[in-house]
Amino acid sequence: MLTLDTELARAFWGEGVLDVEVAAGADVLARCAAGAGAPKDAIGWLDVDKWAGKKELEHVEELATRVRERADTLVLIGVGGSNNASRAVAEALRPAGCRVVYAGNTLSAAELNRVMDELSGHDVVLDCVAKNFETLEPGVTFRLLRQWLESQVGTAEAARRIVCTGTPESHLETLCREHGWAFNPFPADVGGRFTALTPVHLLPLAAAGVDVRALAEGARAEMSALRAASAGENCALCYAAVRHLAYERGCAVELFASFEPRLRWLGLWWQQLFAESEGKEGRGLLPVVASYSEELHSLGQFVQDGSHVMFETFLDVTTPCDGDSCSVGDSSVEDGFGYLDGRDLWDVNHAALAATQRAHAEVLPVVTLGMERLDAEHYGRLFAFFEFSCYISATLLGVNPFDQPGVEAYKHRMFAALGKDAC
Amino acid sequence: MLTLDTELARAFWGEGVLDVEVAAGADVLARCAAGAGAPKDAIGWLDVDKWAGKKELEHVEELATRVRERADTLVLIGVGGSNNASRAVAEALRPAGCRVVYAGNTLSAAELNRVMDELSGHDVVLDCVAKNFETLEPGVTFRLLRQWLESQVGTAEAARRIVCTGTPESHLETLCREHGWAFNPFPADVGGRFTALTPVHLLPLAAAGVDVRALAEGARAEMSALRAASAGENCALCYAAVRHLAYERGCAVELFASFEPRLRWLGLWWQQLFAESEGKEGRGLLPVVASYSEELHSLGQFVQDGSHVMFETFLDVTTPCDGDSCSVGDSSVEDGFGYLDGRDLWDVNHAALAATQRAHAEVLPVVTLGMERLDAEHYGRLFAFFEFSCYISATLLGVNPFDQPGVEAYKHRMFAALGKDAC
Repeated sequence: MLTLDTELARAFWGEGVLDVEVAAGADVLARCAAGAGAPKDAIGWLDVDKWAGKKELEHVEELATRVRERADTLVLIGVGGSNNASRAVAEALRPAGCRVVYAGNTLSAAELNRVMDELSGHDVVLDCVAKNFETLEPGVTFRLLRQWLESQVGTAEAARRIVCTGTPESHLETLCREHGWAFNPFPADVGGRFTALTPVHLLPLAAAGVDVRALAEGARAEMSALRAASAGENCALCYAAVRHLAYERGCAVELFASFEPRLRWLGLWWQQLFAESEGKEGRGLLPVVASYSEELHSLGQFVQDGSHVMFETFLDVTTPCDGDSCSVGDSSVEDGFGYLDGRDLWDVNHAALAATQRAHAEVLPVVTLGMERLDAEHYGRLFAFFEFSCYISATLLGVNPFDQPGVEAYKHRMFAALGKDAC
Repeated sequence: MLTLDTELARAFWGEGVLDVEVAAGADVLARCAAGAGAPKDAIGWLDVDKWAGKKELEHVEELATRVRERADTLVLIGVGGSNNASRAVAEALRPAGCRVVYAGNTLSAAELNRVMDELSGHDVVLDCVAKNFETLEPGVTFRLLRQWLESQVGTAEAARRIVCTGTPESHLETLCREHGWAFNPFPADVGGRFTALTPVHLLPLAAAGVDVRALAEGARAEMSALRAASAGENCALCYAAVRHLAYERGCAVELFASFEPRLRWLGLWWQQLFAESEGKEGRGLLPVVASYSEELHSLGQFVQDGSHVMFETFLDVTTPCDGDSCSVGDSSVEDGFGYLDGRDLWDVNHAALAATQRAHAEVLPVVTLGMERLDAEHYGRLFAFFEFSCYISATLLGVNPFDQPGVEAYKHRMFAALGKDAC
């Protein structure tokens, strides 16, 4: 289960202030829960079963089985919404299926060359994820890795090792038919950053060995609960209200902090979700990810004593899984850390978390999202929670969460420089 | 060589505005160049030869040779200033010496267990870097990895595979004498985040196979030039003036962007340097790192159209090295990316950079630091440039760049919770 603890922020803002904000958001919650007013082609994610239902799960599991029969490595060629959700889960859970290598998320030749070195000697399947197949990074990377794969195993076998995830009826689907590549549908009614619970990510995660049924089930349970819960009992609305209040009171930045380094990629998924959904019309909180305790040794001083420009959301995993324990034991050497004798590192890490929350709460609003365990079910819950709360939060801010008009500015200049026809 | 291009920021602010700021900083530049007014125990880094001179280079090279004779893997146990500079160089240059594994930078048991898995089957040397040996992360990690190493090779051989980098006359040096571990001096007159060009980092970098003489030479040349250059010709002052002007005009955030993913760790080093040096007394710009082009697909929308809370510093590598080239070639498939036929990815990436700079400069101040090549010499130059400009920038802001009083707040609470005696 997920829990949202707002006690420290409530103490910071004063009794009742957040409750007023939550109550004021009741109408927005009701509209968002019903998907009212949103473009129909943007909220396919709101019904988890639509894109992570029985049929979709069977389809991606069948494709994933074919991938795993043929390959030990899946190259996920995609950027932004076509990459972040998969990476968030696979890097955190380290499942036992195909290794996933990420490409198509950079234009750096050094990075692409490094990826090709990494692939050498492996049986590789390419998954090119590109909603409209015009984005530069996956486009050029797919071409280069496809040619590399053909040079390794020949064109016929390469064709059996390529799957493309794109919009049905698109040029990419035509190419799949022409060349015998497998095709995986990118939902037409879900924007890239909201695709965590669709075949776009279910396929690479299933290939990686993640329990995608648990992921979907967690998401379904969380989304249903959030769409049904009243304003006063609704964690997604409460989180959106915290964000809105912080913004209204002058915060420029939301810091998303956790004490588990493997949650960093979830942070990057979260960053895209909120930055693209809210950063428009001169508005929005800049979402920034902090990986503690390491970055307490870089950002800690600033958070405590620097410009008061932020509020902080902690993500806390409350129950250890296998591998989350490490006894400090005693030391034969008088190392000065005797106060740690016999403790477990899990508890030491949580003592650091609690101390940091209390210290930061002296100077800024602090909230904590607790997830019970770091597993597929809870990743599903997190995706549902943040997608729904982002929808509410952007609506409270008065912007359209589902477009991203600002990214055209650099693209126009770039395509002009590269001689691409205007589109 | 390094170059600072401020043309876009000048256009944003209007003719002459930045020049006034630079001229106003001439006195501060003169004082900083002389180290006037700074505590003597804080500016040992200002004279590169003092800690990266002939004697120090010979010492670390001798130690590094011993490491490489014994090990294929060096575990750098350190956090913040004891980790970031080494990682910045080693992860970018990928030298051919010892593999470096980073530990002591987290309290996550899962992460430490992962590191121990990574070490399995390798010949390992531990380098524990801890100025005062009271910091929790390296302290507890050193204990656990030392016990692991002893269990692998026995106490006597383990002792030959341990080096500690700490303050002379400290408890850590005493332990080294008692247990036969090698000792590497942590300069008493350099704070952690200013140690890039001292034995603290020269040792792991030499072990990793980095040309530390070129690193030191680049730093020496850059620092000498910056300390001697007049205000109107001084890139370090100019960068500090840009930061100060941006801050005075209401920016809350500096975004540090590059188009080479392997520069990310340099960004994290830069982030600590500025966040800890300036984030105090309720002041300072929050330093945030952006890894483009990937994060144009998450942050790009916000930067272009969201809250106008930031200015942006680009780091651009101007000349390709080996491995920075990748011809896109032609495609046998009509993939829709024909406009890339025959181009090199290096040029495509730079077209994206130039387009992004121009697009962002429409809405915020943009400056670009150019480094000619991504090599050891230029890393030395970058460290010198940023350390010196940080000193100037913090002085312009009116804060002491060399302390970090704010980090005590969480430490006090944490040590109390863990039962450590007050210190």
